Amino acid sequence: MFKHDKQLLEIVNVERPNPNYAAMLQEQLGGPQGELKAAMQYISQSFRIKDPAIKDIFMDIAAEELSHMEMVATAINLLNGHDPQAANATIGNIEAHVLTGLNPMLTNASGQLWTAAYVNVTGDLAADLLSNIAAEQRAKVVYEYLHRQINDKHIRQMIDFLLNREEAHNTMFRECFQRIQDTGSNRDWGVDKDAKLYFNLSQPENYVGSQLHDPNPPSFTNPQNSPQH
Amino acid sequence: MFKHDKQLLEIVNVERPNPNYAAMLQEQLGGPQGELKAAMQYISQSFRIKDPAIKDIFMDIAAEELSHMEMVATAINLLNGHDPQAANATIGNIEAHVLTGLNPMLTNASGQLWTAAYVNVTGDLAADLLSNIAAEQRAKVVYEYLHRQINDKHIRQMIDFLLNREEAHNTMFRECFQRIQDTGSNRDWGVDKDAKLYFNLSQPENYVGSQLHDPNPPSFTNPQNSPQH
Amino acid sequence: MFKHDKQLLEIVNVERPNPNYAAMLQEQLGGPQGELKAAMQYISQSFRIKDPAIKDIFMDIAAEELSHMEMVATAINLLNGHDPQAANATIGNIEAHVLTGLNPMLTNASGQLWTAAYVNVTGDLAADLLSNIAAEQRAKVVYEYLHRQINDKHIRQMIDFLLNREEAHNTMFRECFQRIQDTGSNRDWGVDKDAKLYFNLSQPENYVGSQLHDPNPPSFTNPQNSPQH
Amino acid sequence: MFKHDKQLLEIVNVERPNPNYAAMLQEQLGGPQGELKAAMQYISQSFRIKDPAIKDIFMDIAAEELSHMEMVATAINLLNGHDPQAANATIGNIEAHVLTGLNPMLTNASGQLWTAAYVNVTGDLAADLLSNIAAEQRAKVVYEYLHRQINDKHIRQMIDFLLNREEAHNTMFRECFQRIQDTGSNRDWGVDKDAKLYFNLSQPENYVGSQLHDPNPPSFTNPQNSPQH
Amino acid sequence: MFKHDKQLLEIVNVERPNPNYAAMLQEQLGGPQGELKAAMQYISQSFRIKDPAIKDIFMDIAAEELSHMEMVATAINLLNGHDPQAANATIGNIEAHVLTGLNPMLTNASGQLWTAAYVNVTGDLAADLLSNIAAEQRAKVVYEYLHRQINDKHIRQMIDFLLNREEAHNTMFRECFQRIQDTGSNRDWGVDKDAKLYFNLSQPENYVGSQLHDPNPPSFTNPQNSPQH
Amino acid sequence: MFKHDKQLLEIVNVERPNPNYAAMLQEQLGGPQGELKAAMQYISQSFRIKDPAIKDIFMDIAAEELSHMEMVATAINLLNGHDPQAANATIGNIEAHVLTGLNPMLTNASGQLWTAAYVNVTGDLAADLLSNIAAEQRAKVVYEYLHRQINDKHIRQMIDFLLNREEAHNTMFRECFQRIQDTGSNRDWGVDKDAKLYFNLSQPENYVGSQLHDPNPPSFTNPQNSPQH
Repeated sequence: MFKHDKQLLEIVNVERPNPNYAAMLQEQLGGPQGELKAAMQYISQSFRIKDPAIKDIFMDIAAEELSHMEMVATAINLLNGHDPQAANATIGNIEAHVLTGLNPMLTNASGQLWTAAYVNVTGDLAADLLSNIAAEQRAKVVYEYLHRQINDKHIRQMIDFLLNREEAHNTMFRECFQRIQDTGSNRDWGVDKDAKLYFNLSQPENYVGSQLHDPNPPSFTNPQNSPQH
Repeated sequence: MFKHDKQLLEIVNVERPNPNYAAMLQEQLGGPQGELKAAMQYISQSFRIKDPAIKDIFMDIAAEELSHMEMVATAINLLNGHDPQAANATIGNIEAHVLTGLNPMLTNASGQLWTAAYVNVTGDLAADLLSNIAAEQRAKVVYEYLHRQINDKHIRQMIDFLLNREEAHNTMFRECFQRIQDTGSNRDWGVDKDAKLYFNLSQPENYVGSQLHDPNPPSFTNPQNSPQH
Repeated sequence: MFKHDKQLLEIVNVERPNPNYAAMLQEQLGGPQGELKAAMQYISQSFRIKDPAIKDIFMDIAAEELSHMEMVATAINLLNGHDPQAANATIGNIEAHVLTGLNPMLTNASGQLWTAAYVNVTGDLAADLLSNIAAEQRAKVVYEYLHRQINDKHIRQMIDFLLNREEAHNTMFRECFQRIQDTGSNRDWGVDKDAKLYFNLSQPENYVGSQLHDPNPPSFTNPQNSPQH
Repeated sequence: MFKHDKQLLEIVNVERPNPNYAAMLQEQLGGPQGELKAAMQYISQSFRIKDPAIKDIFMDIAAEELSHMEMVATAINLLNGHDPQAANATIGNIEAHVLTGLNPMLTNASGQLWTAAYVNVTGDLAADLLSNIAAEQRAKVVYEYLHRQINDKHIRQMIDFLLNREEAHNTMFRECFQRIQDTGSNRDWGVDKDAKLYFNLSQPENYVGSQLHDPNPPSFTNPQNSPQH
Repeated sequence: MFKHDKQLLEIVNVERPNPNYAAMLQEQLGGPQGELKAAMQYISQSFRIKDPAIKDIFMDIAAEELSHMEMVATAINLLNGHDPQAANATIGNIEAHVLTGLNPMLTNASGQLWTAAYVNVTGDLAADLLSNIAAEQRAKVVYEYLHRQINDKHIRQMIDFLLNREEAHNTMFRECFQRIQDTGSNRDWGVDKDAKLYFNLSQPENYVGSQLHDPNPPSFTNPQNSPQH
Repeated sequence: MFKHDKQLLEIVNVERPNPNYAAMLQEQLGGPQGELKAAMQYISQSFRIKDPAIKDIFMDIAAEELSHMEMVATAINLLNGHDPQAANATIGNIEAHVLTGLNPMLTNASGQLWTAAYVNVTGDLAADLLSNIAAEQRAKVVYEYLHRQINDKHIRQMIDFLLNREEAHNTMFRECFQRIQDTGSNRDWGVDKDAKLYFNLSQPENYVGSQLHDPNPPSFTNPQNSPQH
């Protein structure tokens, strides 16, 4: 069951309306590395997880991503200002002005509608956790790009918070990975000779060799992690 | 520049036509964890890579994924048989029978058209490599599902080969990651207090704690890897 | 802020696994009249609503729709059973068997990926409420179709519950509409002569006339509604 | 059978070319609340309607929406001017300049391709009519946004005409709704206790109560409508 | 302006309901080579055509394609029968049973939603006509596949009619092409040395040579065509 | 099997970075008439071609289109410059600045993600070749639009090269068409009376007649073509 609390996870503010910043920030509302994607990926994956501690972490993070989505949307709403005026929206998509009456919308910065094609679910916990670790890293990168280009101190503060939260989630998913790392798709790795071959198909070569020495499954160096469970 | 060699990377054969197996195998031609996606992701990411050895590995693998795509499509083509007959295609999409004259098509097993939404590119090498490691792991998982359900010894042999190649690519991407792991989005990790917080948003809790102990960036345990470069 | 409670809104059960029922039920997880669509539409619309009582109702319903999504996904997960076997999934999409390891996925019954194109947001409360009333009515209709075709008493019970909840939401959105019905796009209605014309463009005609008598804005007959606020 | 008359439903003109206005107006050619969507929704729904008077109204309106689409496209074509020059197209999508040689295209203002995901069809007349009433209301809202932002007197005149026509269609669909309001998904409404419950899932609450008093099906207040049939 | 005549272009009938045939026939309602695509492509292209005779032919054909769409949808509606029952719809998409109450829908046979990505418009008449000639040829091919697999004499008769109409349109578009063949993108063809080179990029070669002898623009052999104008 | 050579097919250079030119050029990387589409269409079609000389030509061209894609992406990468700054990207999509760290991406100029809906495959060689001839003509048109609007001499030189290569491919596909023109969907053409009818459905008419005189299948005038094989 999901519940909503009208208090935002963190207060959101803007210095002043800026429709271009609003368009840019849409990337993290409805883009491939955005908050909705993160929430949907973790919720979807959780439906088949049996380990209660891991399921708990997934839902903790998923609920937080939904709460981030709410923060980002609140920021966009404030940045959109009060008057639809596409002429002032000189970069990115203009849907806020011609379609939604300045309401945030589930698209990326350029207007591509959100699609479930962004969501990766395999039913294999090792693969899903690696997907999530990568997703958190990408989300961080996008926030860094936005942080560099948006000169509104309140928005930068929000981005800073969200960026750090992606790091925290990344850490948590890696801790989960350590717990399950000898299971599922990580088992029986590299036993076949084909798993050790190197095909040199791009010329001229810069990488020399024809066999991989140590085809082990993914395993993260010990973050000796965190809360007891 | 790309070149084509009419010889397949590995010979492909089938015991006998089977339109349902053809539909299932479409998943790895035009699905989110399929060969086209892999090739497109690595090619796209490579355009901005400066390190020549890493760029070389990306293009070695990308060219191999295109070659895998050709193998999977060849298998589908053989499985589709000789007569369009949707009535015999009782699972999955029926486009081979009503649209393409039994030609393989860029869709997944259920007919969803391939979309570039499957492709993740961030311009940050650490994030892109993590994306690729996860992508290879997911591709392996899907091949395992197909291996279990397709009772054609030649197709199983092909799947076995492809599955092992995904492991090899996974190993190679992790080796690249080790080389660049203190750069880009992996730098300045976890310095902010927000990166260490734990929000307990799903009740009842199974994971106890409020602070992450060791929020380091991702780092794989040494595969002490492979070819010299 | 969103929070998650591991208890489902209502307990979900199945008589026995049935992959075809699972595929059918996907329609209300990731289809155009499904629970995710409803949740996303109401959350999106809420971002710009100022009236606190109306915003409250929107978020009450949105949180409930997310909770319904969780129920539907739980049911699909149980219906999918324990062994991926596309050969037994003779109707609808087969992604559970070849892609997700039996995990529910954000697609409709035939495998079309969920898209934000399903979500209507205009920033005009009258229009948005009419969208929601229509959406709830359509959701009810789809549940009626599923109820008729799924012979699993537990699933039918769940559908019955969800169907009635859509009625309740419909009632609540109409109550909201009554409160705001003289505002926004409902103002200044039909003052122009063009709003009264009837163009007879389909022959032979069955509808006689050339002018509409009473072009008033939409207004629902009094449901004399419900909770105090 | 459809026929075309080279005369436009209403003459369309522009003061002068304006590529930005052209991009904005694309919203109502190929966007979710645009004319193509309206035409396709009503045509699709009509295929199973049995009541000849209602089918007639649906096709009258559908043919008119196709005719509106032609008007909007004609306006875009004139606004696009004579020379492809993306540099002058500073807001919204630039496809007219790089892809279509200034030809209108089936996208929204920001370049998202039209998708049948915009079209709602349920086979239940009550639900379909509610969908259409909502669709007409949304179309009106979008025309209001465009009217406010486009300073070309001829385009404003066209928008004014189209906006009023959406009101007329809205009136006509409500009249149809009154005729069928005790049928289909409107029957047996609210008999179940679950249809009367109120779940308070968003805190702090602004809406007090736990039970809906009068869960009747949708019914519009009498527009005492219009042409004889 | 578009008008609708309730008489179908040709009477449509079925021997008996057959949900699988209905699903297959969806390919030509909402698929890439289907009637909606054809109508939308020709209507879109027509908006910028200046030659009145050519514009007339485009709109004659576009109106006919809309009329074909109506015929195909009528056939699907009859084939869908009277009771939603996904269990009997063993091939292709099942949306008619779980979503649309047996109403035809704008998808292909496997449930992929229609998208304007199918529509090609360039603003260059030579290119657009070549697109249309190819589109008509493809539409014919798909009807041949359906004709071969659908054993309902009335449906086969309808397909036969439609297939021949695509041939007629093909002839008409080629006649248009002959009229404009020295214009637009067909001018100044092959003057550059690069237009004559042959790159041998696939090995082993079966096609010998390094230079193209006669790089003229496309030109069809005289069909010495048809109606006076 | 595919192989990659790190040397570009032709050297690519730019006078100076220009994010707007980069966005415009995206049209030919990830748009409907772009290089990826061409490569994917010819590769997909080739899977079922039996004639070795024709298959060879298809793969020669497909490999070249992949090589063009690499050139276009290299150009975009150079034009994107060194600092993500959406504020300087005043036309078209801004994903390079907010999502990909200036990396080229598989979208068109306005940000629409590449979709396999652009790819036409029918399994009928006559139809597929006509699709390719039309596709090459459209690709040429788009390059002409870009050539006219991009004032960078190096980019113009690249466009000029690519434009001429599309002409060469066009010539080669027409030569293939001549070889197979009495086969597949080109056989038994126009024997039915329906293939000769002309329906006058757009009024007032500009094209007079009721019967097509010479409904032959498509056949190109002799390009007396080119390399021996």
